[in-house]
Formats: sequence, structure tokens, C-alpha cells
Amino acid sequence: MISESPNLTIFHQKSSPSNNHTMAPVITRPGSEENLLNISSNDLLPLGEFLFIRILQANPKLRSVFGIPGDFNLNLLEHLYSDSLVNEVEFIGICNELNAAYAADGYAKVIKGLSVLITTFGVGELSAINGIAGAFAEFAPVLHIVGTSGVKAMAKADVATPGNIHNIHHLVQNKHPLLSPNHHVYKKCIEDISVASESLDTNVTANLEKIDKVICTILQESRPGYLFVPSDIPDIRVPKSRLTVPLDLGELRDPVLLEQVSSRILNKLYHSQKPSVVGDAFMTRSRVEAPFRSFVDKLPNDFVKLFNASMARNIDETLPNFVGVYAGNMTGDKSVVASIEKDTDTLLVMGFLDNEQNSGNYSQDYSQIKDVIKIHPDYVYIDEEYIMIKNFKTGERAFSIGDLIKRLDKTVDANKFLYNDHTLSNIPAKKPIVQLSLNDPVPSEVITQNKLVDFFNQYLRPNDILVVETCSFLFATPDLVFPKGVEYYSQQFYGSIGYALPATLGASRAEKDLGTERRVILVQGDGSAQMTVQELSSYIRYDIKAPEIFLLNNEGYTVERIIKGPTRSYNDIKDDWNWTELFKVFGDVKCEKHESKKINTTSDLKELCDRPKTSKVEFFELRLAKFDVPQRFRDMFT
Amino acid sequence: MISESPNLTIFHQKSSPSNNHTMAPVITRPGSEENLLNISSNDLLPLGEFLFIRILQANPKLRSVFGIPGDFNLNLLEHLYSDSLVNEVEFIGICNELNAAYAADGYAKVIKGLSVLITTFGVGELSAINGIAGAFAEFAPVLHIVGTSGVKAMAKADVATPGNIHNIHHLVQNKHPLLSPNHHVYKKCIEDISVASESLDTNVTANLEKIDKVICTILQESRPGYLFVPSDIPDIRVPKSRLTVPLDLGELRDPVLLEQVSSRILNKLYHSQKPSVVGDAFMTRSRVEAPFRSFVDKLPNDFVKLFNASMARNIDETLPNFVGVYAGNMTGDKSVVASIEKDTDTLLVMGFLDNEQNSGNYSQDYSQIKDVIKIHPDYVYIDEEYIMIKNFKTGERAFSIGDLIKRLDKTVDANKFLYNDHTLSNIPAKKPIVQLSLNDPVPSEVITQNKLVDFFNQYLRPNDILVVETCSFLFATPDLVFPKGVEYYSQQFYGSIGYALPATLGASRAEKDLGTERRVILVQGDGSAQMTVQELSSYIRYDIKAPEIFLLNNEGYTVERIIKGPTRSYNDIKDDWNWTELFKVFGDVKCEKHESKKINTTSDLKELCDRPKTSKVEFFELRLAKFDVPQRFRDMFT
Repeated sequence: MISESPNLTIFHQKSSPSNNHTMAPVITRPGSEENLLNISSNDLLPLGEFLFIRILQANPKLRSVFGIPGDFNLNLLEHLYSDSLVNEVEFIGICNELNAAYAADGYAKVIKGLSVLITTFGVGELSAINGIAGAFAEFAPVLHIVGTSGVKAMAKADVATPGNIHNIHHLVQNKHPLLSPNHHVYKKCIEDISVASESLDTNVTANLEKIDKVICTILQESRPGYLFVPSDIPDIRVPKSRLTVPLDLGELRDPVLLEQVSSRILNKLYHSQKPSVVGDAFMTRSRVEAPFRSFVDKLPNDFVKLFNASMARNIDETLPNFVGVYAGNMTGDKSVVASIEKDTDTLLVMGFLDNEQNSGNYSQDYSQIKDVIKIHPDYVYIDEEYIMIKNFKTGERAFSIGDLIKRLDKTVDANKFLYNDHTLSNIPAKKPIVQLSLNDPVPSEVITQNKLVDFFNQYLRPNDILVVETCSFLFATPDLVFPKGVEYYSQQFYGSIGYALPATLGASRAEKDLGTERRVILVQGDGSAQMTVQELSSYIRYDIKAPEIFLLNNEGYTVERIIKGPTRSYNDIKDDWNWTELFKVFGDVKCEKHESKKINTTSDLKELCDRPKTSKVEFFELRLAKFDVPQRFRDMFT
Repeated sequence: MISESPNLTIFHQKSSPSNNHTMAPVITRPGSEENLLNISSNDLLPLGEFLFIRILQANPKLRSVFGIPGDFNLNLLEHLYSDSLVNEVEFIGICNELNAAYAADGYAKVIKGLSVLITTFGVGELSAINGIAGAFAEFAPVLHIVGTSGVKAMAKADVATPGNIHNIHHLVQNKHPLLSPNHHVYKKCIEDISVASESLDTNVTANLEKIDKVICTILQESRPGYLFVPSDIPDIRVPKSRLTVPLDLGELRDPVLLEQVSSRILNKLYHSQKPSVVGDAFMTRSRVEAPFRSFVDKLPNDFVKLFNASMARNIDETLPNFVGVYAGNMTGDKSVVASIEKDTDTLLVMGFLDNEQNSGNYSQDYSQIKDVIKIHPDYVYIDEEYIMIKNFKTGERAFSIGDLIKRLDKTVDANKFLYNDHTLSNIPAKKPIVQLSLNDPVPSEVITQNKLVDFFNQYLRPNDILVVETCSFLFATPDLVFPKGVEYYSQQFYGSIGYALPATLGASRAEKDLGTERRVILVQGDGSAQMTVQELSSYIRYDIKAPEIFLLNNEGYTVERIIKGPTRSYNDIKDDWNWTELFKVFGDVKCEKHESKKINTTSDLKELCDRPKTSKVEFFELRLAKFDVPQRFRDMFT
């Protein structure tokens, strides 16, 4: 429940001289509503420093924050260089704010905890907003800190008369030209794409509560939240003692209900003749993989069939009772559909993520299943009823999804499955991995997306981190059979193209901060890569676990071409970029930090399997035919 | 009042077969509330086609629309290829949506009329939002058309129950997981950064009214507006006859008030002993340059002193009575300050733009001036009173700023200035252009920003279009003395770095569409260029009037370095990019469409003055010292 504080017990006072300038007035002022005079200055520290330390308490693994400087956040950024923080956290300067939001999202997902994005008033925060909406839609716990206009400027605006309003830079004017601008105008934009937002001011006690509230809500909901920090308050002093107050990351409020729900779920399974369990996305997104995997392992593997949701892929697909990836009628292997829809009496969906992409366009048919149980962070659906575990008025949960999964894991008993006669009759025989490319009517040396699926089914190794951009290849991921421990990330539901390239930077940085030794593999389209391409520069700027990038160059927006206007100019991009020269332009002329290679043939592709290990970023440009798409995507339109 | 229709009198029926697919359901349905059965199909045309034709009526000069395809806008984009439009308008595919918004902004400013940005639901519109906020803050008439979820999907959402809600891609979920997503959720974000927004639906008559309302409001306010077009309605048929209804681009509602205000202003000038006129930004942004310049030319040039506001620069600076650029205590030449603040009895500010940047941080001191008159699009300030010419309840104006300027121009009589004795005593003697670099203590070959000011004072020619990014050099623009007819664009107030590079693409495209033969010059910092750099690709993709780009490479966010943290890592960027190789990577390996050059010395710089004319994009990388800034910017902090 309480994150341990990292090695930050010694807090050096840091003098941060205020720097009055004409563009964003910066003043240092004490908390106006507090009497801190009776606290020794040794027991105080600047608000900015406090904030970053608190963040480290909420995520002790965090070593990187992402952002772009602006005159409204400089006073805050300065505190990253205080003695207590300078060796703990590094500021990762990103080329632009949207990319930074994507990077923070990728970082949060791989580090499995809070990540931080810092932008400036208006121009910065708005540039990032689509990345935050994506983190909201796809459940990434990103804290977006925005340096705003100062409290002094806000106070001035409140009393201004027509003759003396101040329109300050980065802040859109009031529509009435004789009224003051609304310094809070941008906050409206993020109400529906964030789970918490607070504006700090000069009230010290309230500030500290707001910080905790936002951080804790972000972690509880696994979704983004905002702290708005006026430019003139990061230096105000706050009591250190607050750092000893534990963060409330989700109290167990109703153990009785927890026990009841857990028992009902298990009893359903115990009394099932043909039980199936689907691993769905919230097991990952709510960061409960460990008890979830432990629970799944305890289920009798000669009796309970296992499936993965297409956006989840968190059940070990090498388990003997793993049947397949299930996404309604978009499931590739129709016997998988039959196995779940027609040959299951009790279905437990663990971490139910309800959307078009994850459900095969809502084509899942559970009508022949007697009992369907869905575990969601906010409710449990059982016996055709929703048991709400989140109170939407207070925001509190009776218990967390983690509490429930832990409880299930702790209490499940493989011997209690009444109908398990150990004949294995429930588990369909394992099929070999389908060779999708067998029927591709092209010369053997020509790379197709089907062949690429076959390639990755050979290429992937246990514990790889695989990031797939929203591109035509994404539709093929259900045909990939993942080795044990593969972590798979995409933005399949929100589908903001351009996401994956900076997100993989964040993911790679998280992998570095975690100190594990996993491969990070990005599969990326050319149209989407053009959106955020400058961030390749950061791949070689920062010390990251060097990822492998597979760029699928197929001359434009292939997904859209299949939907409409295959040869229309709106689906074209500038398709003659020299992709393999990009890293040189971004400074690595001598290829000291990267290797780029054109992969023109299936032989080139095969050679990748045996290449030596390198610590460099690897960039592979695969030239694909303009209208070639994976079989599964083609099938959607025929 | 009424824009002439371009050559679009023949409307061919176009069959746009609907394309049902699983991701964004597309249906063709007639107007549900209309009975169009009694209209011959020859008298109908698809809504999408109607919309684009109406846009061309509102801006007959428009030949380019900017955007990015997405499955929710494809049905709309298709109509750009109808027989009546395919030779009239080209879709300019931009690398990402923020860049596209910037490009549309630059296009609007140079074409001096409506520009169009087309994005897709959620991911696209939100990515562009910062660019639209900039267009709002800086008054660019951009129409942002967003392809949204279909009316069918919206109707479904309205009646959904917990078991059958549909979370569709690109749309953030409801915070309550058992409630339908709000298909209008993103519309809240743009309320305060746009002047009109309408959502089209199946009501044909209402749609046509909404389209007109949005277009007309955008043009009247010179600010962005939105049309949300559901993916399944671009094919519905609407009556052609509506195209003959004139667009109301600002009716003269109160000629009596117009006459009164105009007379009062002129009488103040006629009775002034020391009149001064400031050309301010709305003369450009409200697109009333022609009558404005004509009016200024009619003022006795031996009597009325002329000044430019720093964000305006629209009075010909070569006129004999032009005194200088005035921005309060940030004015370089203090005699200019004295001339306006201490030696003026009647001050007429034409097109008053009220903000921090334009006012020298609100340091203008008018206390010694007897009469101050300010003309703003929404009011006239005279005799210490605000005469409101816009009714903020109805949005209507008694008259437009154009009506007023035209009236002033028509009625001003140079012979009526009572105190003009033709002695020239009112007009200070012209000073030579200051050589800022004279005192730069560096070797003569070293380029400094002060030397760059001197260079541009030599280099600029009449009618150049100059775009300056928000960068350290921007602060030096008041020290540039513009030849006649120079158009100057920046985003000095909103200050979103990254703006200028795509905006210059839009500006260059507008220059091409206008068919004039002006030079387009961009001055750009390296930190800002990294934000939007991929758009250089579009410079060589599309047929544009090839601009000249001066990239000031000074290793990071120099403006921020001067404000705070000069050596902090947050102010660094990856500073070893091979800028001059960028266009090659973007496909112009043989330099057929561009020339790139490193400008290392003042000799290199001088050589640029005599180089031969080229039709290629020219890119000059100027290496500058990390902490070197223009004198004027340095002065702000000393």
C-alpha cells in the first residue's frame, strides 16, 4: 500500500534565487495562508523538490521524466537539479510535446508505474493533449505537470478593468476584448481525458494534499492526471514531514465483499464442466500481472482452457491449456471461436477491456455460455448482474482489482474443480503455428506481411518487449504466438498513429531504468513514422536499451487505402525518404550508436535471425508492396 | 459582402458508393427530416461537395486544403475528387496534424482569407488543437473540419444499456465503464479557442445554415471555427440552390453610428497640433490593408507622424513621416518613444492588438497624450470611452472595422488639419539605420545575431514575405527596417515554437496559389525546428514558391537559457544534427528541388546577397554562438 521512499532522506536546502524577468514574472513568496515561522528552515524544502521526491515515493523505479522547457516551467525544472534529486532523476528532453506524452506513456507501461511529463502553459500542454487522451483511453498512469502563469498574474487578472487587462503570452485572450484572459481556460480541455487534476497555489497544506490526491488517483485508475504548477510557486517552502505520510494507493475498504465476490467466482469455476478463462487487458494495465499469472498457473491445466484477448496477451501462450487469441469473429482460427463460444459453460474474463478493437468489433457471442463472469477494475459482472466495486460519487473502491486477483490466487484450489476427471478432454490438441505465407502467390524472395508474421513467429524470444504501431501489421498480431514472458504494447483502441515511435523511446528508457536485459522491438509503418520521426534523434541522444525498429515502408496510409480511396492522393505520403540515413542526419554520422539496413528480400529477413548482438539502435527498413496487407486485415473487407 | 463563386456552375452528379466496413461504419442516408423527393436529382449534390464549393465561394483564391486522412474523414475527402472540384482544389497531405494546423494558419495569413484544415476524430483534431489555439490567439481564419463518428453510431450510443455500449476507436471511454462514450466529448476542448463550431447531422437545411454560419463567423472574426462532419453524412444530397444564397460576411447594420464614429476620429485628428498614427496588427489580421494604406497615404506627410506596432509592421516604413517601431520601453530607439509619448497630443492606434508582446510588456505610457483613440474590430476607444461596435450577445457588429477604415479613407481630407503649417516641424528627421553590430566585440568573420540584423537590413527587398519563428532573433525584428510592401508574420504573442516551419509551408503554398512572385524568407531557431522538422519533406513534395530558410543553429533553447538555467540540460537539444542533409533524407538526394548550405562566416553571409535566383528551396544553416542573442533581447535582462 505504501511505496518505500528511495534514498532521499537527506534534504539539502537549495537556494533558488528568483529570476525576475519580463516574460513570465517569477516571484518567490511564502505560503500566504500558512504560518511556517515556527518550523525550522531545516525542516522545510522547496515545493518543487518536494513534488519530485513525492513522485519518487510513488514510483521508486522512476529515474526519468520527460518534457520540454518553457518559461513557465523553468522554476520547477530547476528543482530536478537539487542535491537530493540530481542523481536520482534525469530530465529527458523530447523534441516536441506530443512525442513527450507518447514517450511518457510508453515509459509508464514498461516501468509499470507512474511516469511524468512536464510541459509549459498553453502551447506545451495543448500540444501534448492527444497523447494524454491516448493514455486515458489505453490506461497509462501518466502525471502531466504543466507550468502555468503565476499566481500573481492570476490575481491581477481577477481585478483588472478594461483599461488594464494583461494578455500574456501562451494564453488565449478572452473572447471579449475588454475582459481579462481566463488563466484556467485550458483546464476545461482535460476534464474528460484525465482522472484527476489540481491547480497548486500558495496554500501549502492544500498543495500537498492536492499532489497526493492526483498521484494516488492516477495510480489507482491507471490513467493520466494533471498538476498545474504556477510559475512563481516552485520555490515556496513546505514541511518535509509530509514526506513521511504514506501515499494511499488503494485501501481495502470492504474485505467482506471481497471475500464474497472472490468465493462466488471460484465456486462458478469449481462447478463448471467446461471452464474457460480469458486474460484481458486490465491484468496488465492495472499492474496485477504477478498474482494473475500465479492464479492462472494454479488452474488445472488439463481442465481449464485459457485464452488471450487480442489487446492483452498476458497469459503465457506456451501453457499446455492455452487455446488461442480470441476476438469474436475476427479470430483467425475459427476452432478457437468454437472452443470458447460453443464449448464453454463458465467463462471468466479477467481484466475485461470493453472496446471495438478488443472484441472483434463486438462480435463476441456468449449466448451459449451458461455463466459469464467479467472482472473489471470498477465492477464484477456475475450472474447477469453488475457488482459495482467503485463508488462513482466518492471515487473509492470497496477493493481494488489487485485485491481481488490476489484473493483469487490465494484461495483457488485446483482440487475443487468438481468435474475435472483429468482426461484432458476439455483441452483441444495444440496446433502447429499456421504458416500464413504458404499461399502467398509471390516469388519467394518478395517480403509480404504474411511472411512477416511467419518471420516474427520465428524471431520472437521469451521476455521480448514488442511494440506495434497502429498500422496494417497491427491487425496481424493475433496471428503471432508469443513465447513466454513477451510483453506486447500497442495503442490499438485509441489508435493515434505516430504513437509507437516515441512510446518505444519511453519503453526503452524504462527498460534501461529497470536494469533488465530484454529486447525492445518496434514494428512501425512509414506513414505513422513520419508523424513523430524526429524522436529517433532522442534514441541516440539518451542512454536507452537500444531497440530494434522494423519500419514497414509501403508508401502511405495502407490501412486507409484498404478502407477507401486506394489510389487517392490523400492516402499518399512522400514515399522516397531515405529512411536508413535518418540517424546519420540526427548526428550519428559514423554509425557509432545505430545500424541501419534495408531489408529487401526474405533472405535479408532470415539473416536477421542469426546476426550478432549489438548495443546499438537497429533500424531495418522493409520495403513492402503498396497494397499488401496481412491476411487477417484483408479478410475484414471481403 | 458576397464572394463571387468560382467556375463551379456545372455540378456533375458523382456516385460515391458507400463502403461499409467494420471500423467506422459508413452509411449513405438521405436527410431524415427533409422531403427532397420533389427536387430533381439534377438539382441536388452531395453534402461534401457542397461544403467544399461553399468554401471556395467564401475564399475564391483558395486552391489548397491541408490535412491528414483518417477513416472518419475519408468519405468527406472523396468529394475533393468530384468533377467540379478536382481541378479547383488540391489536398495537401501534411506529416502530422499539428503541422497541418500551422500550415493552414500560414496559408490563411498570406492568402488573406479562409483556409481549411481537415483532420479525423479525436486523434487528429486533438493533435491539431494547439495550432488552432494559436490561430485563435493570433487571428487567422482557419476552418477546421473534423470527420467524426457517424450519426448512426451516435444514435446507438444514446440508447445503449450497460451490456451493449460501444467503445469505438479514437473515442475516449466514459469514465463510468457501463455508460456509453460521449461522442461529443472533444467539442468541449475547442469552445474557448474558436469563434464558431457546429456539428452537422442528417438535417439538410440546418446543415447548410450551420456551414454558412461557421464560415461567415470565421471570416468576420478572423479566427478559427469548427465543422464536425459525421463520417456517414458526406454523401447525403442537398439542394444546389443554396449555393446561390450569398454568404453574409459582415453586413453594415448601423451606418449612422459608423458616420458618427468616423467623424469623431477625423475631427480629433483635424484639431490636433501633434497627431500620431500607429499601424497596429488588426489592419492586417482583419484584412483591411488596402483602405488602411490608402488612408495613411492621404494623411499630410509633413504633419502626421506614423509608427508601426511591433507585431504589425503594416505602415510603409519608407514613408517620409514614418518615425519608427514603437513598443513602449522595449523600443530600441528612445527618441521614437519620446516622439510618441511626449510629443503627441492625439494618438490614433489603428487596429489595436492588446497583448504583452505588442505593447513592450505593457510599458506604453500614454499619460501625456491628450487624446488617445484606438480602433479595434469590436470597439472604438475615444474620449476615454469604449464605443462597442460588436454586440457580444448576438455576435453582430454595427459595422465592421473594414467599414470604418473605408469610411475614414473615403472622407479624410488632408486640408482640414487645422494646425498643419507645412513646416515639417512635427516630423523628426530620418535617421540612418543603426548598425547594431558595430560594437560586437568579436572577430569580423564571426556571425552574431546583431550582425544578422544588419544583414537583413541589407538583404530584405520590397514585397518580401518574412516569417520569423519564436526564437531569440524574433526579439530583434523591431530593429529591422522593412522596405515597402514587406509582409511580416510571426506568432509572437501565442509563441508556440515549431509554428513557423509548417506555417511557412502554408505561406509559400498561398503565394503559389496567388500567383505573385514574392520571396518567402523564414528565420528559424534550431530548437523550434526540431519540433516540426518533418514538414521540410512537404516543402519538396508540393509545388510551392520555394522559400529561403535561415536556420539559426545555436545548440538549444536560447530564449530559455537567457531566462533561466543557461547551462542546464533542460535547455539543451541534440545539437549535432546535420541540418544541411535533411532534404536529401526527405528524398531530394540529387538536390533537384533544394540547395543547402552552411553559412559559417560573415563572408558566407555577404555572398548570399549576390547569389543567382533559383526556383529551389534554399536552406542556410547559420552556426551561432550558444549564448549570443540580439542586443534588444539582452537588454530585457540587464
